[in-house]
Amino acid sequence: MENYLTLCDIGNTSYHFLKDLTTTKEYVSTFDPSIVTEDVYYISVNPHVDILVSKLENWYDLQACIDWNNYYETMGVDRIVACEAIKNGLIIDAGSAITVDLVVNSSFEGGFIFPGLEAMQATYRNISPRLDYSLNFELDLDKMPQNSRDAISYGVLRTLYSEVMRHDQQIYLTGGNAQALSQIFPQAIVDEHLLFKGMKKMMEKRC
Amino acid sequence: MENYLTLCDIGNTSYHFLKDLTTTKEYVSTFDPSIVTEDVYYISVNPHVDILVSKLENWYDLQACIDWNNYYETMGVDRIVACEAIKNGLIIDAGSAITVDLVVNSSFEGGFIFPGLEAMQATYRNISPRLDYSLNFELDLDKMPQNSRDAISYGVLRTLYSEVMRHDQQIYLTGGNAQALSQIFPQAIVDEHLLFKGMKKMMEKRC
Repeated sequence: MENYLTLCDIGNTSYHFLKDLTTTKEYVSTFDPSIVTEDVYYISVNPHVDILVSKLENWYDLQACIDWNNYYETMGVDRIVACEAIKNGLIIDAGSAITVDLVVNSSFEGGFIFPGLEAMQATYRNISPRLDYSLNFELDLDKMPQNSRDAISYGVLRTLYSEVMRHDQQIYLTGGNAQALSQIFPQAIVDEHLLFKGMKKMMEKRC
Repeated sequence: MENYLTLCDIGNTSYHFLKDLTTTKEYVSTFDPSIVTEDVYYISVNPHVDILVSKLENWYDLQACIDWNNYYETMGVDRIVACEAIKNGLIIDAGSAITVDLVVNSSFEGGFIFPGLEAMQATYRNISPRLDYSLNFELDLDKMPQNSRDAISYGVLRTLYSEVMRHDQQIYLTGGNAQALSQIFPQAIVDEHLLFKGMKKMMEKRC
């Protein structure tokens, strides 16, 4: 029965649904949540969507299931739910932001926020038209770059990599850019369903 | 005599002048370079300003003095000039972009580009109003953050720090945010005149 619940993770740019073991995505800018007829158990980091769905009787906010003793007050619920999914490791959730969270013995031990890959590319482009490049995921991480595209790719990917690898933890990759980042972190476990797993675990434990 | 040359480093947002051993800054958006009457020896990474000053008879582009055998074709002249100033070390030039360049035995060994501090803050703010924070330069770099402001500050400063420190080199800090970054890199030599030193050295050697 439980597998047939509809779950939804609402981010800054999309609704991410899990229904009947398959996932779908809808853009926040165009999707109307009132067209969903079944019950939806959701988390949201999007203040605009919060207002919309809070008016709908069949949308249930899982924020109520969070044990806040383990997390800080302004921490995104998506990060919390990801942390609930694992016992030990470093979670990289690569969406419009890239959040990196450390879990040790099922306890959240802190984390940081890096801009998402598209946001970083836009940032370089806005600084100067001369810095407008797509990221090179085949970059040699062990060599200081000798061309502009690699200089920017290294600025995004190597800085993140240097910090992540320092923790010497099992890495879990999730979010829209998980596949892209797995080229930089080949040792990582890619799990597109990590947040849904966390949501289910949290519901079983506390709701 | 040579000390009394007027030098100018033109970046994405400002003109940085050295005249009679004192430096001044003018915004690219408001400054009219044609009001300068004396000879100016300049470098520029700004394509818009390039067009303006190329029409002025008393503005001399030092790009002509660069030995391109040591650098790659699309590398910013500001980075090249900074590299000319030192024999060994890692140069962090923190302006609208943060460039990090490695010099070993007076030879450029590669470098990368990170967005500037203001650009990074704007990037977070644009991802979500919930990520709109000023950077905390007093952040504990050895502890994964447990609050939003530190999570963002760590995302900017710790990622850069982890990569920079890995190289185990003397660090030189220059550019508009050199003082701010010196809180993160207390062992660095802060030198606001590094680019002007490189410009002078290059003129002595080749022009």
